[in-house]
Amino acid sequence: MSNVRKTIRDLAGYVPGEQPQQGKLIKLNTNENPYPASETVVSAIETAVRNLVRYPDPVATGFRLTAAPILGVDPDWILCGNGSDDILTILTRTFVDAGNTIRLPYPSYTLYRTLAAIQGATAEEVAFNDDWTLPTAFRTGDGQLRLVLLPNPNSPTGTVVSREEILEIADSLPCPLIVDEAYADFADFNCIDLVQENEKIIVTRTLSKSYGLAGLRFGFAVAQPQVITQLLKVKDSYNCDSLSLAAATAAIRDTTWLAENVAKIRVTRSRLQEQLAQLGYDVIPSHANFVWCTHPEQPAEEIYEYLKANGILVRYMKYPKWQDGLRISVGSDEQMDACLSLLEKR
Amino acid sequence: MSNVRKTIRDLAGYVPGEQPQQGKLIKLNTNENPYPASETVVSAIETAVRNLVRYPDPVATGFRLTAAPILGVDPDWILCGNGSDDILTILTRTFVDAGNTIRLPYPSYTLYRTLAAIQGATAEEVAFNDDWTLPTAFRTGDGQLRLVLLPNPNSPTGTVVSREEILEIADSLPCPLIVDEAYADFADFNCIDLVQENEKIIVTRTLSKSYGLAGLRFGFAVAQPQVITQLLKVKDSYNCDSLSLAAATAAIRDTTWLAENVAKIRVTRSRLQEQLAQLGYDVIPSHANFVWCTHPEQPAEEIYEYLKANGILVRYMKYPKWQDGLRISVGSDEQMDACLSLLEKR
Repeated sequence: MSNVRKTIRDLAGYVPGEQPQQGKLIKLNTNENPYPASETVVSAIETAVRNLVRYPDPVATGFRLTAAPILGVDPDWILCGNGSDDILTILTRTFVDAGNTIRLPYPSYTLYRTLAAIQGATAEEVAFNDDWTLPTAFRTGDGQLRLVLLPNPNSPTGTVVSREEILEIADSLPCPLIVDEAYADFADFNCIDLVQENEKIIVTRTLSKSYGLAGLRFGFAVAQPQVITQLLKVKDSYNCDSLSLAAATAAIRDTTWLAENVAKIRVTRSRLQEQLAQLGYDVIPSHANFVWCTHPEQPAEEIYEYLKANGILVRYMKYPKWQDGLRISVGSDEQMDACLSLLEKR
Repeated sequence: MSNVRKTIRDLAGYVPGEQPQQGKLIKLNTNENPYPASETVVSAIETAVRNLVRYPDPVATGFRLTAAPILGVDPDWILCGNGSDDILTILTRTFVDAGNTIRLPYPSYTLYRTLAAIQGATAEEVAFNDDWTLPTAFRTGDGQLRLVLLPNPNSPTGTVVSREEILEIADSLPCPLIVDEAYADFADFNCIDLVQENEKIIVTRTLSKSYGLAGLRFGFAVAQPQVITQLLKVKDSYNCDSLSLAAATAAIRDTTWLAENVAKIRVTRSRLQEQLAQLGYDVIPSHANFVWCTHPEQPAEEIYEYLKANGILVRYMKYPKWQDGLRISVGSDEQMDACLSLLEKR
């Protein structure tokens, strides 16, 4: 259709990990949680389902009041969204004009490139140093640089940038620094309190990974209130539905469930890393709920195909000028045993 | 924050109708359905709640396969979204660059102006003719005109533009014509089949009004497949959650529920219109689930305040150079009796 914006016509479109809707595959390709969500989430939804005729609260008051003391911020420092995808979209639409530049590290989350393209902006990738810190080039920029995105822990590597380095980057940058903490619950630290140090730091979170609620679509941003005020203008009025608001409120309140779930996944992650190493894989120590690995002799794409043919779906990813490799989600112990046993037979 | 795009800094932000989260108000201000959704919707959610750990189907296959024969189109003519707000956002991001123009009729749905502003585009309002048809100026335009939005039935008037006129407008326009059918189930006709006649016609729908599911956030667009292909690139990957997908599929399948619900609301609408007229109000005959009315002597804002003070919330709207008046949602018969009885006492 000729009326479509040129930037959209030229866009290939982001391709998310496969989401097979049928079949009995063990699914280790999109970092979902292997364990069902807290039972309190189910109860909250079963109550909320009785009041769907009304529009939801457009500003998620219930969630924000519950989450604020848990996160250690005031309620007006929180913006809720339909998954962190929605939050990231709101952020690009708030800060980025056509012709501007968005920066991300490399290798990292390729969705950011699509978000830049939809805004008519350029995505600039800056390679990590060998020790997974970031070079000076990541923290300098002119007026065209309007947003810097840093997943922390990073995907697909599972590596982290320290709090000190994040503060230094934000201090140097001429624009906001989005710290995408989709996986932070699996790491040893997070950066939510750094939002108070510098208004350029905006932290995003999702309930898809550590809360086992990928199907719910709920995410949020933590930022200073004068930033939230601007983001609110850009979001759709009712971007969070009544069921996800009720469920997310129950989920974030159940801090015991979260702690137990994260502890289990971290134990399984350690074991997965050790056993992959024993099988001859090169493994980057991970702070997330997935592990990036390559094999010195076996091509990653062949391993991916072999596992898929045997009922296990992992993510094969190809990063030109760096590596192609496998990103394997940390599943249950049984799922890891099935995966490792197949790899051992190869 | 100085890094925010100028167009966003300058934006007042769209203000949706009041959504009081507490209290016992009779709520007739945002055109919600007075009757609870089909029980099959509740069952569908209670099943889907058991599988929230997985990401939803990014392209809503189940809904599209179910809806297609009911709508009389193929499944690849349908795009699903997080409410029709999400669909309208996707449409503006697909077609409208900064500096372009979006056209809408006047008086109409003011959200379109906000969508234009967020894209850095200009909103051009063309006044309806006295008989609620549209003047020639609505169907001409240069290369800067990138999207024309027409709610049909229109809000706040409840009036309709005929199918013949819509076809003629689309034929003349240099850009897509979005026919926003949020209220079409309450009218005598709709335009979904016209999408086959002209690729510029795109119809949008919501489940918030006629399906009683405002809290769910589900809407969709019907367009030719080459248009859908472009829209898919712009939407967030997982814009519909698992619960809303299951619920929407159950809702659209229950055609009996819809027919009965719409029939009830149309009967109540007729009665509301007649009784308002008897009380001396000027009423525009409505094809939607609300009624626009004014009173020759009583200022609309005072009536709004009077009703609110007595526990009934209607929508007071002010359209410069046209009218200010009240948009009253068609509620249950009991709700209408309560409202009419208060108006009678004034």
